[in-house]
Formats: sequence, structure tokens, C-alpha cells
Amino acid sequence: MNIPQTSLPRVVIVGGGFAGLALAKGLEKKEVQVVLLDKHNYHTFQPLLYQVATGGLEPDSIAFPIRKLFNNLKYYHFRLAEVLKIHSEKNEIETSIGNLEYDYLVLATGSKTNFFGNKNIEKHAMEMKSIPQSLNIRSLVLENFEEALLTSDFEERKALMNFIIVGGGPTGVELAGALAEMKKGILPKDYPDLDIREMQINLVQGSNRLIDAMSAKASEKAEDFLADLGVNIWKNLRVTNYDGDRVTTNTDETFKAATVIWAAGVQGETVDGLEAQCIVERANRLKVDAFNKIIGYKNIFAIGDVASMTSENNPYGHPMMAQPALQQGKLLAKNILAELKSKPLEPFVYNDKGSMATIGRNKAVVDLPKWKFQGVFAWFVWMFVHLFSLIGFRNRVIVFLNWVYNYIRFDRESRLIIRPFKIKNNQSFK
Amino acid sequence: MNIPQTSLPRVVIVGGGFAGLALAKGLEKKEVQVVLLDKHNYHTFQPLLYQVATGGLEPDSIAFPIRKLFNNLKYYHFRLAEVLKIHSEKNEIETSIGNLEYDYLVLATGSKTNFFGNKNIEKHAMEMKSIPQSLNIRSLVLENFEEALLTSDFEERKALMNFIIVGGGPTGVELAGALAEMKKGILPKDYPDLDIREMQINLVQGSNRLIDAMSAKASEKAEDFLADLGVNIWKNLRVTNYDGDRVTTNTDETFKAATVIWAAGVQGETVDGLEAQCIVERANRLKVDAFNKIIGYKNIFAIGDVASMTSENNPYGHPMMAQPALQQGKLLAKNILAELKSKPLEPFVYNDKGSMATIGRNKAVVDLPKWKFQGVFAWFVWMFVHLFSLIGFRNRVIVFLNWVYNYIRFDRESRLIIRPFKIKNNQSFK
Repeated sequence: MNIPQTSLPRVVIVGGGFAGLALAKGLEKKEVQVVLLDKHNYHTFQPLLYQVATGGLEPDSIAFPIRKLFNNLKYYHFRLAEVLKIHSEKNEIETSIGNLEYDYLVLATGSKTNFFGNKNIEKHAMEMKSIPQSLNIRSLVLENFEEALLTSDFEERKALMNFIIVGGGPTGVELAGALAEMKKGILPKDYPDLDIREMQINLVQGSNRLIDAMSAKASEKAEDFLADLGVNIWKNLRVTNYDGDRVTTNTDETFKAATVIWAAGVQGETVDGLEAQCIVERANRLKVDAFNKIIGYKNIFAIGDVASMTSENNPYGHPMMAQPALQQGKLLAKNILAELKSKPLEPFVYNDKGSMATIGRNKAVVDLPKWKFQGVFAWFVWMFVHLFSLIGFRNRVIVFLNWVYNYIRFDRESRLIIRPFKIKNNQSFK
Repeated sequence: MNIPQTSLPRVVIVGGGFAGLALAKGLEKKEVQVVLLDKHNYHTFQPLLYQVATGGLEPDSIAFPIRKLFNNLKYYHFRLAEVLKIHSEKNEIETSIGNLEYDYLVLATGSKTNFFGNKNIEKHAMEMKSIPQSLNIRSLVLENFEEALLTSDFEERKALMNFIIVGGGPTGVELAGALAEMKKGILPKDYPDLDIREMQINLVQGSNRLIDAMSAKASEKAEDFLADLGVNIWKNLRVTNYDGDRVTTNTDETFKAATVIWAAGVQGETVDGLEAQCIVERANRLKVDAFNKIIGYKNIFAIGDVASMTSENNPYGHPMMAQPALQQGKLLAKNILAELKSKPLEPFVYNDKGSMATIGRNKAVVDLPKWKFQGVFAWFVWMFVHLFSLIGFRNRVIVFLNWVYNYIRFDRESRLIIRPFKIKNNQSFK
């Protein structure tokens, strides 16, 4: 790989998500060379993917070109590449565009969908971890409606208008809410020839409450909000298979549905070449110490979703969300600089700022450490926080205007079938 | 096809471009049933495709969901379908989703790229007639730059940074200007490791002046503007072949280039099943009379790019642009309603409102019937006209804000490689 050789120590960051970019930012204008690798040339603001999937936002407004963040930074290099293997004995990585030596290697590779080994579900269900995947969902929802118009077979039409969202975490809840708002607002107007009551949105949760990482009050309210919007909520139900036609579960319950969206689990996106004992099997995450250093390595780190930093009070590691990623990236920048000056490192302490989820128009739930609230005010807080977490002034303005427009007009105008004709199984475009 | 049977005469419109939508609008709330068929579920504002291709705009802002235009119109039906054949003897069309009878059939199918039979060029060159194609160009330009970073072979790098635009009409000129602005503004900042002087933009025109449908003054100024921006202009040069690597011409001149964008010609997008004698061979357009009725048929019309309405003063038909399409669509609505009432029809007279092209920041050329001007004021006129021709309030606001932002910041932020990895030859995604 054509990266200039300098006398500066080289920090190679794999992944331009929240963690990777926070680290890169922390190293700005310091005495290091930074090489960031990602398989996309843009950062994705994952918390708003569901709005791209449901026509509320354009993909460009929740993405940001990584190179733009590096403009005018002298020792920063971005490369569009996939990392294939780590050769830690040579301090080198193997990538799709050649090999690269590092002084420090930081894996900020994030997470991918966890199908728990079920190949059928992986083949037939939709996932929503990237912008192309979100556009696939958007296209499929609309294509199913177009197709529903064409059939006079009641069973077939019902299946085309039946949406199964598996997983009652924040992603599943937000997506179910947004689909329910499409059912209320746009779809009956766009498809007056269909009976919109035939559209069913089913949210299937394995445990006994929705968003079970949040407070009981938040779960309860989220459930109320979704029920108000007409979403069918299934608790203590686990999807066991989906053949593209019928969903089976661990009970007698089955669903005939043309669309299954799998939001029931994520796992770390690890890279080949690390010792097996540093990988946590359950979630495919990398065991790190309190400084995010991967157990057993001196100069290889993991931050964000892919890192599992456990303690007595925290046996499963931090939640796979933006906040720990941002905080770990920020601290690791300081620690790398400290290590270079042979100064003591600072252990990571997670500052849980709370969590939130939006269900729909005027409906959100917020858990702050000292205050939990739900409803309209929570919704405004949710919007405010997400707007200011977006990268880029232009993105904030465009998203804000879209939200104002959608709110006033009860509309979502980005409903283009732009990745057309049932391409959900076309893996090459993920 | 599941279209409700009514006692109203059925007008089937094929194509949701400028012509088709103008016709549909003219028939609103009249005593007809309207069925509009299109292979996309959105209208594309083609004059701004080049801005999507060059990162200035998101695709959603120049597209509009067709169904939204039909909201609350009782006897209007949209179907996502491709028309395969006309069976005029049965007053029926065959489509990808079944057959449909019509009382009046209107082909507003527009135009497609004309490669003049050259299969090599068709295979290797990019075209820009649809949103996916524009996104392909955007991705390819950026992918080539990413790839150029990786090679130390000077010849290979030069080819990756060499852009050949074939055709010096408005499309070619606007695209060349926008690429030149990328070269000036964004690319050197995003790719500091590359020597931007190695990037070459070549605009190849077969005749002896650019945009030769406009005034001599406009051509001259457009050429000056492009030269100022550093575009290499080749006149009286015709591209004869492109094998994906080398462009050959009708002279000794050849170019080694990884990107060729073909904007050298369009042809009508006809439908099978019409008599051969109603097709103009040269441009694959359909011969129509002064009422846009296809020669030899009683109830089949063609409007817009696909229609060729000739007269002594106008031997080649009207220009394949938005204005004739809009005007023909509007008039045909009146004429169909007149025919239903057995009233006399009004022949079409083209009201040439003028034409314009933008080359870049503060640089445009405008030919009005009585006034031709160029430069900053022309640029403002161009922006104003295009902004108000867009469909939808939201689109206008978003495009306007993007333009203000791009103007102030000398930036184009929509530079996501969203259809990645050299997919130009993947026909299935066009």
C-alpha cells in the first residue's frame, strides 16, 4: 500500500464508525501518522438508518465522506479497503489493496448482524446495518405494495402486506414505529386500491419485554405507543426459521410473510489472524483490558462494538452502542499519546449518559441516569440529541428540514424504489 | 392487470417523465380514467442528473414519487410496469404485469442513450439517463481516484484520472464543467497524495462547436468558460471505439482512460407492436401528426422525446428536451377531452422559450428568443428556472439549500460511493 513512510509512529485504524473517528479526531495534529481503512468511503450514522429504510430521510444526509474529515490533516491517510488478516508477528496487516505495517493497530470494525447460525434466515431476511441494506428494505416494502396491487389472491396479498420485525430492541421498536406511521400516513394515500387494514406489522421479541436494556417504565410506554399505532407485539416468542414464505417460531405460532427484518442480534466484526483465546465466543467480540488493548497483544487494540471489556459488575462488556464507542475512541487517543511519552495510561470508565428510543411522532422514551421520561418532551430530546450527534453542518440542516417537513405534512417523501426488483438476496451489493 | 372497470374512457399513459405527467395533470378531475405506467415509481428531473453524478445533490431531491402526485385523484391509477408490446388490433397492451385494454394509448416513453450500434462503447462507457446511472458515474469517478492512490505506475494512474466525455451538447458541457469544479475544489483536498494536475477532463465534440443547438455566442462563451476551468475541448473529433482501456477516434488521436461518459446521442424509446413505417429510423422516434397522433393509428399518441412531429421548417422534429414534452403533454390533455366531446382539435405549435446550460459557478449561457446572455446573471437565471421547474416543495427547498451550501463552501458533500466496486457493466442495476 502506498502510504508515505515518515519518522512518526503509525497508527492504523480499521473502521470509520463512531469509535474509529473519535480516535482519529483525538490524534489530530499530534506526533503520529494516522491511516484509516474502511470498506465504505463514508461514515454511517447508524441510529438513523431506520428512517432511510422508511422513506423519511435520504441516505446522503446520514452519511459523511470520511476524506472530508481528513482535509488539511497532513499525516492522515484514508484508504478504501477491507482488512483480510492480521500478521501480528510482523506488525503487518493484509488488506484487499496490499499489506501495511503498523506501530499501533486499532480494530474499530463494529458489528454485523447475528443470525445465530441460521442460514435460512440469513438468506431470506433483510438486515439493516448499512445504508445499502436500508435502501433495500425501503425498496422491498414499496415493491411488496406494488405487487400486492396485482394479485386477487387474498392469502398472497396478505403475505405481501405482512411485515415481521424480529427483535424488540431499539432498532426493532423504532423500525416498527416508523412502518406503522407509513401505514397511517402515506401508504393508504399512495395505494387507495388496497385495503390498508390488511397490512400487519408484527414485532417479535424473545424476552418478556421490549427494549429490555432500558427501564421497565420505558418498556411499558414503548409497548403502549406501539400498540396505539397498531403494531402487533409478540413477547416471549422466538423466531426459529424463515423460508422466504413462512416464519416459524418456538411455539405453534407461524406467520406467512414476504418481509422479515432481522434485528434480533449483532455480533462483533472480527478480523482473522488473532489468537482464538482473545475472542468471546458468545458475541464474537474481542477481549480487551481496561485500556482497550486486546488480551495477549502489546500494540493491538479494539474499541467500540467489537471490543468486550468486562469487569465484575459488567460481565458481558459494554452495550454495543454509540456512547461506549465514542468514549473508548476518545480515551484511546489520549492513551496512545501517553504511551508514546511513556506516561501512565488511564483505564476506561464508562460514563452511561442514558439511552433513548423513538417510536413515532411525539412518542419517545428516554432513560437518563437520574430521570426517566416518555412522550412528547422525550421525543424533542431524542430529536435534539440525534440532530447534534450527526456529523456535518449540511447534514444537520437537511435532516432538520426533512423532519420539520415530515412533521407538518405527515409525509415522508423519500420513497423511491432505488434498488429495485426484489434484490434482497443479491449479496454482492451489501 | 387489476384496474377497476368504469364507464369512463380509459387513457393509458406510458412513462412518467415531463410529457406523461403534464398530460396526467391536464386530465385531472375530468371524465376519464387515467392509468400511468412507468418502470420506476418516481419521476426523474433529468436536467439535474449531472449534479447527482458529481456529488452536488442527493438523488431523492431530483426525483418525485409518482403516486404522491396521484393522491386523492379518484380515477387515477399508477402501476410499476414495463410495456412489452402494443396489440393495437385489440386496443390492448402487454406489460410485465399483465395485459391492459385502453381507449386512448399515449406513449411518453422518452429517450435512451444512442450508441449508434457500437457494442463496445455500449459495454464499456457510462451513460447518464437515469438516477442509478448517475450514481454509477459518481461512484466510478471516486473509485478511480481511490484506485489511482494505489498504483505507482504512471501510465495506469493517468488513465484512472483521465475522463473522456463524448458529446458536446448541454449534457456533456454541464458534466464537464461540474467535473472541472470537482477537480478545482474537492478532489485536491480529498486526495492530497495525488497530483491533481494528472487529472484530465476531455470533452469530445463531433461538430465544430459546442452546444451547437444554441447560438454561436453561447457556444463561444461555453467554450471559454470550460477552457478557463481547464477542460480540454476537442472539436471535429469523433470517438469510434472504446475497449475499456483505450479510446480511438476518427483521427490519429487516442486516449487511454478508465472512464468514458457517453453523452453523444439519444434515441426514442419505442415500444414493440407498431407498424414499421411509423418509426423514423435515424432517431428511433415515432412519426406523429400535428395532434401527436401516431401516423396510421386512431387512438395511439406519442408525446415528448419519442415523438417526431415534422414540418417544412422543422424537418427533424422538435428538440428532445423538457419544453416540447411539457407543451405536448398539456395540449394533448385538451385534445383528448375535445375529441371525447367531438370538438375540433388544436394543432401543436411549439413555443420555444429558449434554452440554457450551466458550466459552473457563476457561469452559464442563456438563449432567450429575443435576448442572449452569458455569465453570472445567466447563472442565476439558470438556477431560478431549474429550481422552480422541480416537482415538490420539499425538493425545491432541499436543492436550494444544497446549492447555497455548495456555493458558500465551495463544496459538494454527496460524495458517497453508494453503488460500489466498478459495477458499470452490471446491466441488471440500470
